[in-house]
Amino acid sequence: MEYRFGTAASAVDEARLWERHVRMAQFGALPGGGVNRQALSPEDGRARRELARWAAEQGFTVANDPVANLFIRREGSDPSLPPVLAGSHMDSQPTGGRFDGIYGVLAAFEVLQALNDAGVVTRRAIEAVAWTNEEGSRFQPGCLGSGAFTGAIPPRPALEEVDRDGISARAALDQLLDGESDFARRPLGFPVHAYLECHIEQGPLLEQAGVPVGIVTGVQGSRWFAIEVTGEEAHAGTTPARLRKDAFMAAVDIVDALRRLMHDPEDIVRFTVGRFEVGPGAPNTVPGRVFFTIDFRHPDPHTLKRLGDQVEPVVRAHAGHCSVRVTETFTSVPCAFDAGAVASVRTAAAGLGLRALELPSGANHDARFLAEVCPSAMIFVPCEKGISHNEAENATPGDLAAGTRVLAEAVVALANS
Amino acid sequence: MEYRFGTAASAVDEARLWERHVRMAQFGALPGGGVNRQALSPEDGRARRELARWAAEQGFTVANDPVANLFIRREGSDPSLPPVLAGSHMDSQPTGGRFDGIYGVLAAFEVLQALNDAGVVTRRAIEAVAWTNEEGSRFQPGCLGSGAFTGAIPPRPALEEVDRDGISARAALDQLLDGESDFARRPLGFPVHAYLECHIEQGPLLEQAGVPVGIVTGVQGSRWFAIEVTGEEAHAGTTPARLRKDAFMAAVDIVDALRRLMHDPEDIVRFTVGRFEVGPGAPNTVPGRVFFTIDFRHPDPHTLKRLGDQVEPVVRAHAGHCSVRVTETFTSVPCAFDAGAVASVRTAAAGLGLRALELPSGANHDARFLAEVCPSAMIFVPCEKGISHNEAENATPGDLAAGTRVLAEAVVALANS
Repeated sequence: MEYRFGTAASAVDEARLWERHVRMAQFGALPGGGVNRQALSPEDGRARRELARWAAEQGFTVANDPVANLFIRREGSDPSLPPVLAGSHMDSQPTGGRFDGIYGVLAAFEVLQALNDAGVVTRRAIEAVAWTNEEGSRFQPGCLGSGAFTGAIPPRPALEEVDRDGISARAALDQLLDGESDFARRPLGFPVHAYLECHIEQGPLLEQAGVPVGIVTGVQGSRWFAIEVTGEEAHAGTTPARLRKDAFMAAVDIVDALRRLMHDPEDIVRFTVGRFEVGPGAPNTVPGRVFFTIDFRHPDPHTLKRLGDQVEPVVRAHAGHCSVRVTETFTSVPCAFDAGAVASVRTAAAGLGLRALELPSGANHDARFLAEVCPSAMIFVPCEKGISHNEAENATPGDLAAGTRVLAEAVVALANS
Repeated sequence: MEYRFGTAASAVDEARLWERHVRMAQFGALPGGGVNRQALSPEDGRARRELARWAAEQGFTVANDPVANLFIRREGSDPSLPPVLAGSHMDSQPTGGRFDGIYGVLAAFEVLQALNDAGVVTRRAIEAVAWTNEEGSRFQPGCLGSGAFTGAIPPRPALEEVDRDGISARAALDQLLDGESDFARRPLGFPVHAYLECHIEQGPLLEQAGVPVGIVTGVQGSRWFAIEVTGEEAHAGTTPARLRKDAFMAAVDIVDALRRLMHDPEDIVRFTVGRFEVGPGAPNTVPGRVFFTIDFRHPDPHTLKRLGDQVEPVVRAHAGHCSVRVTETFTSVPCAFDAGAVASVRTAAAGLGLRALELPSGANHDARFLAEVCPSAMIFVPCEKGISHNEAENATPGDLAAGTRVLAEAVVALANS
């Protein structure tokens, strides 16, 4: 039976999808309206159990793998073909919102149920997936589940991590998996035909543009730096400017030079000084030391390299009478999503008559890892004022449904290819 | 008998003066070579007792007053005339040095003993004085003794202050005075003919100029400000520059504009940002708030007013998309020392053939208060690298003696006038 475009999207139920966000927000609910549902916690386990219950009602297969990635499979007409995966993560920040991560999982599950409701048969199986520990707030590193699945993060050392209560990731994982002994068990990593992920934007661009859907073209790269400026403490009342080695004033010169370096009329460069600490911190003492961080991001690998490589020389050139130490603390190369996967999203949005903006992702996501092993792309929906990692995080039922409809059509197209 | 210039200076004993610094540094000695001899502490009491013992050996009268200012009097030929006072303070910072304050007291005492040794008779009595609690590190405010003596600081509310162990200034004062019941008791405040104070410079100018003596022309004024900048927290990866309200970048603009305002080719302006705190302080979050302090000082009242009055307008003009709050937290008008008192120091230094630099004091001192009630001046000696309020504080025996010789001649001239 030929698939008719729009069938799956039409069966997406906005109220049901919203209701499920409300339900999931009860697992780890915080007084301020957000959630604390950190990776491998009892709350995480209860949310997974709830999802599995819904899956069983629909006749889907529920499985996990050795790092607790959770898979809900709607079978295709040819079970031997690699499936299309869609999903995100269910864990949250300690004071997170009701949409970050969980939206991508619920959107994928909504697609599976919509396909059931509409009686659509796809050639490949479609699986909703919840990757373990994307946030990394309880156990470092983040994206453990997708990283382990794709081979980028070896699970063994990562599972030695201990949370602030002294519980190891391995112990928490074992306890969670013990509670899911009725789930099927999958090996770690298997062939995937394509991967799509819905997510709130966590930025202001879609809301500013008044557009419900973001077609994510990739994930920008990051280079983080730590800068230490060392001068000499001195008495503020007695020491003339010419004899000072004022670490604060040197740091101001350095930051001023760096933002001239990073100035970008197109406003694609992301340059942030988020930590900036001055010592000793007495009003009447000339500061002897400053520590600050640089978070620099760009979607283009050449620009990321060119500007990032100039950070240390620019810092050194503007240190004045002070000495400096520059350390690159984190590097992540930009990722461009597969053109075909992005096109499937673009085609779906256009076919549904939804206005869309193409943009790179400013934040990191599980799709960044999946993109290394299969064609991958992402769909963004607006979030209020771009606020995320915050209990105030918000999104509208209509936008969540619009993103899910695009996901439905894109996933079906990929599953039939 | 006519006094012959230089007699008193010649009797100043460099080794004895140095030995007494070493001895006093044992009261509250710290492992790093500094002292912790805070106001009205047992260590302070023991140091005062030692000084009183030396005074008794010389036949001088020892007295204290209701706030424990300590007076050691060498009688003049006309006891009815108001005395000349010379001194400073004996209390230290919690991790203070071996010279700040105590030098001025020991120099004054050395002058009294030198006059004994040389058999000099002065018309007026000369008194060495140790003012109580100049530092203000244990009990606020500082300069309590000289401020109470001159009527500028009412002692009653000040003595309600409680230190971090819950001991009130009044209780500490009572205990100290109880241990000095053998001292004569003076009323609070009495007529003073003139006041001179020796002190380490606590700045680098004399050392830089290679000059042993500073003729202090006054105490510069201060205006302190607290600045709060409020923007909006945002995700560092997703928020473009045009949509940010970055409190840190606004603060950098503000500081840059302020230092242009405060730029001074003559290098007399003292402009310091000593505290600068950025919130929330995460590397990947655009800062939503900054708090910083401004310590601005100048010896000229007109310049202090003109530049200080521009701080708030300049801050407002450079706040960009952020909001600001400006609070003036402390104001102290400049003080010009009495021309006659300064001249007595200048004449003494010149007569002794000592090279001297004229400069305002960058820090506050007890002389700032005495100047309100009698002709007053100060004599500075170099301190190593300008370091003070620090265990590493240092000065040479030769410089300490040179300052004391200038004090001796100036004091005798004033006492005979």
